[in-house]
Amino acid sequence: MEGAEATRIMIGVNESTIKGYPHASISSRGAFDWALQKIVRSNTSGFKFLFLHVQVPDEDGFDDMDSLYASPQDFKNMKYRDRTRGLHLLEYFVNRCHEIGVACEAWIKMGDPKEVICHEVKRVQPDLLVVGSRGLGPFQRVFVGTVSEFCQKHAECPVISIKRRADETPQDPVDD
Amino acid sequence: MEGAEATRIMIGVNESTIKGYPHASISSRGAFDWALQKIVRSNTSGFKFLFLHVQVPDEDGFDDMDSLYASPQDFKNMKYRDRTRGLHLLEYFVNRCHEIGVACEAWIKMGDPKEVICHEVKRVQPDLLVVGSRGLGPFQRVFVGTVSEFCQKHAECPVISIKRRADETPQDPVDD
Repeated sequence: MEGAEATRIMIGVNESTIKGYPHASISSRGAFDWALQKIVRSNTSGFKFLFLHVQVPDEDGFDDMDSLYASPQDFKNMKYRDRTRGLHLLEYFVNRCHEIGVACEAWIKMGDPKEVICHEVKRVQPDLLVVGSRGLGPFQRVFVGTVSEFCQKHAECPVISIKRRADETPQDPVDD
Repeated sequence: MEGAEATRIMIGVNESTIKGYPHASISSRGAFDWALQKIVRSNTSGFKFLFLHVQVPDEDGFDDMDSLYASPQDFKNMKYRDRTRGLHLLEYFVNRCHEIGVACEAWIKMGDPKEVICHEVKRVQPDLLVVGSRGLGPFQRVFVGTVSEFCQKHAECPVISIKRRADETPQDPVDD
């Protein structure tokens, strides 16, 4: 199996809801760390990470209540700022890969994360999709919806869902 | 990550329904091959396989309509034969690991495969459970039940379900 093409691991990554810009969510960092420790191990040339960050557009296009958008330029600035946040998030993962010496690619898409992830799996055909999961109970899941469950059902490649460690779960488990 | 303990991959394996004794099912061979090619790759010292074969006891204790069981010895023979079948199945996987140079363990349990697999995950705490799946449609699933879906929901470790390749699916997809 030497010389074979690298195993391409796609990971969906998102921002933390509590740690503030530009931190990665606990569950996406957890999924990445798990893949490094348990799958890649010391075989850094055997794998390539594909980081997908899906940005969710706000319904009304505004995501900051304190700002006033009065001109086309304001909207451009907003889009620019969103894009910058996304790039900073991906930068964290790309930098870590660079330090470790694993190849990677990273990109941003807009839309509903679960739909976009499955669509991108179809398009780029990774060998494996790793998604972090908050490990919510059935009651919380009804309101929050889980990306990982949807992907396990619908993604056209093998999927591993990595639950957050108990000692990393915030007080409100919906936070991440 | 050099020197870390090997990543322990548990795989549930079963007999083929069509290829006859002592062939492994298409989906369990597929799951094993996938794990070798995509996860283990050339890093044979970084992984250890744990093969679990769950034997399903027949409701009435008979699994061969042509045989007559008239004495306690007959039952002993039957149990011995079942055990032998299971050992031959595991032998296939253990031999392949030996050829490749990956460490492994293998054992047999009796019971309902999905329940036993989840119970054994709790007991041996692998890093990862890989299960083969026939990739049945929703209609077939109602009647057949799928071990992989149950394990993805209930096993206390990350689970990858590997669907059979289209070109390996038998005419009746319930066969394996």
